[in-house]
Amino acid sequence: MEVNKVEENPACLDILSSQNLHLTEEMEVNEVKENPASLNILSSQIEVNKVEENVASLNIPLSQNLHLTQENSRNHLTHDDDDDKQWRRLVEELEETIRYKFKNPNLLHEAFTHPSFQQNNKSYERLELLGDSILNMLITKKQFFDYPNLPPGMLTKLRSANVDNEKLARAASKYNLHNYLHHKMTLFEGQVKEFKDAILEYPLHSLGLVDPPKTLADIVESLIGAISIDSDCMNTTWQVVNFLLEPLITPEKLELNPITKMYELCQKNGLKTRFVDKWAECGEFEVYVDEQLVGRGKSSGKKITAKNRAAHNAYFKILQILSEKATIANRDGIET
Amino acid sequence: MEVNKVEENPACLDILSSQNLHLTEEMEVNEVKENPASLNILSSQIEVNKVEENVASLNIPLSQNLHLTQENSRNHLTHDDDDDKQWRRLVEELEETIRYKFKNPNLLHEAFTHPSFQQNNKSYERLELLGDSILNMLITKKQFFDYPNLPPGMLTKLRSANVDNEKLARAASKYNLHNYLHHKMTLFEGQVKEFKDAILEYPLHSLGLVDPPKTLADIVESLIGAISIDSDCMNTTWQVVNFLLEPLITPEKLELNPITKMYELCQKNGLKTRFVDKWAECGEFEVYVDEQLVGRGKSSGKKITAKNRAAHNAYFKILQILSEKATIANRDGIET
Repeated sequence: MEVNKVEENPACLDILSSQNLHLTEEMEVNEVKENPASLNILSSQIEVNKVEENVASLNIPLSQNLHLTQENSRNHLTHDDDDDKQWRRLVEELEETIRYKFKNPNLLHEAFTHPSFQQNNKSYERLELLGDSILNMLITKKQFFDYPNLPPGMLTKLRSANVDNEKLARAASKYNLHNYLHHKMTLFEGQVKEFKDAILEYPLHSLGLVDPPKTLADIVESLIGAISIDSDCMNTTWQVVNFLLEPLITPEKLELNPITKMYELCQKNGLKTRFVDKWAECGEFEVYVDEQLVGRGKSSGKKITAKNRAAHNAYFKILQILSEKATIANRDGIET
Repeated sequence: MEVNKVEENPACLDILSSQNLHLTEEMEVNEVKENPASLNILSSQIEVNKVEENVASLNIPLSQNLHLTQENSRNHLTHDDDDDKQWRRLVEELEETIRYKFKNPNLLHEAFTHPSFQQNNKSYERLELLGDSILNMLITKKQFFDYPNLPPGMLTKLRSANVDNEKLARAASKYNLHNYLHHKMTLFEGQVKEFKDAILEYPLHSLGLVDPPKTLADIVESLIGAISIDSDCMNTTWQVVNFLLEPLITPEKLELNPITKMYELCQKNGLKTRFVDKWAECGEFEVYVDEQLVGRGKSSGKKITAKNRAAHNAYFKILQILSEKATIANRDGIET
């Protein structure tokens, strides 16, 4: 792929020879010119609803007998015919959902194998690691250019909100990606259902009030890793990321997390608050202003979720207290 | 840049139109074909030593009157002639050092402006954020392909070792990048000197025993951010990253950090250890096995550095204790 460059400019030879690279984004351009069909983004617009209807029937596990090679092996999978057909159907459905067609569908198989299900030590964990770093970079890059005047601290917060486990789990849940996952987790389906129900209350982001199943976020990352390898093109990877994660959270929609929000309110009004950590005893946090209990939060999942919930409850109670105080002060002011 | 693709394959039009991208790695290929001179990697091999000699004379601050625009403005910088000459000379030296020639040297100015020195709210912090995410992705991608059988946990550790503050600060220090930095930190030069002296003892990595000045790591990241924007090409960015960070730490050379190493030794030999945290009192940590003091660590910088140093000292003392015990057991065994 670099041959043309080198022929035109022999001076860059020593750099190329020391290259040791798999970072060949430019390759794609030549490939596409030679074979426009290899532009792997599916151009047809698919209705998410249609996919959601189809996906309900997909609880049959993907073929387990696949020979996982890294070669471009769309047309010569080494397993029997029935498995092959079923596998192809599932891959095609998933490809329609995410609007990307794989050259090597075996990458997709790896991306959807949970560690609890792994064979030959292959699970999605390596792809997840790769996908996480790519996602992080793509979102940082987009926001860097989209918001040229946003201070670095705000850029960091904005990125976190767009790549955190809840945002990714929402994407997986929206497109029912979990239905394609190989796993042996008995509680997983229940956790996904609970998550789906819980987020109905928070259209964009719960800001830590909902505890997302980490596996949902993992498969979005492993999928991004798989697409980046398969496409070998950051632009193509970005198309899928953008599609999966939209609507991205913008600076205008970026909210403070409940703990920060509560502290800011109290600081502004000269109130001292403290958390009481009862996590070990009963999975709870309490919030006190002076000696008055103003909020309580519980979670069966993570400690931080319980703490966020306590702060969230406290926030509204504190607002109420402040409003009552203001009314009294106002009334007294009028009376005097 | 996408015109050719679209002409050949109109079906991809809707994807392209929704693109909103600054992720145009492929652009580079066409540019290079049209103008081989734009391949921005400097092909001449420069001796690091030569640069180090030159760099001693570079303590003159870079011009402060630059008009920081994002346009390609190599030939029309908006400041006076003397500043212009001095600035060009510094830029050229830095470009030789890092083997990359900027189209827009103003990016380099931003990349080397510490927050303590900022004008018009411009400092290296946004570029640092971008560069950090790019570096993380490039190293993850390289290691993903270089070590196809390395478990994800090991990949994570390997990446951390190659992108952590100490590794980056070593790169900055090796090429004297700090000499190009605009800043108003009175202690900075002293900290850099202290760091340079301290790492002499550890050729590859101190594993937490040395406390690197964070600013040294920051400017490597902001430089990477600047190059990625200027080149708009991940391959080119990778060339510079690879050059700056070599030798990369390989799995064979990846060592455990002192605390883990000490714990593993004790666990294997049935010894219980505990840290005593005296950081608040005197910047120290102590390590005890049974009631015997086996190690002590101090740092004027970070708490974790003191703790690492305590574990490091304890490790050798514990080895000595174990060896003495073995000698006694052996002697008693022979005597009985």
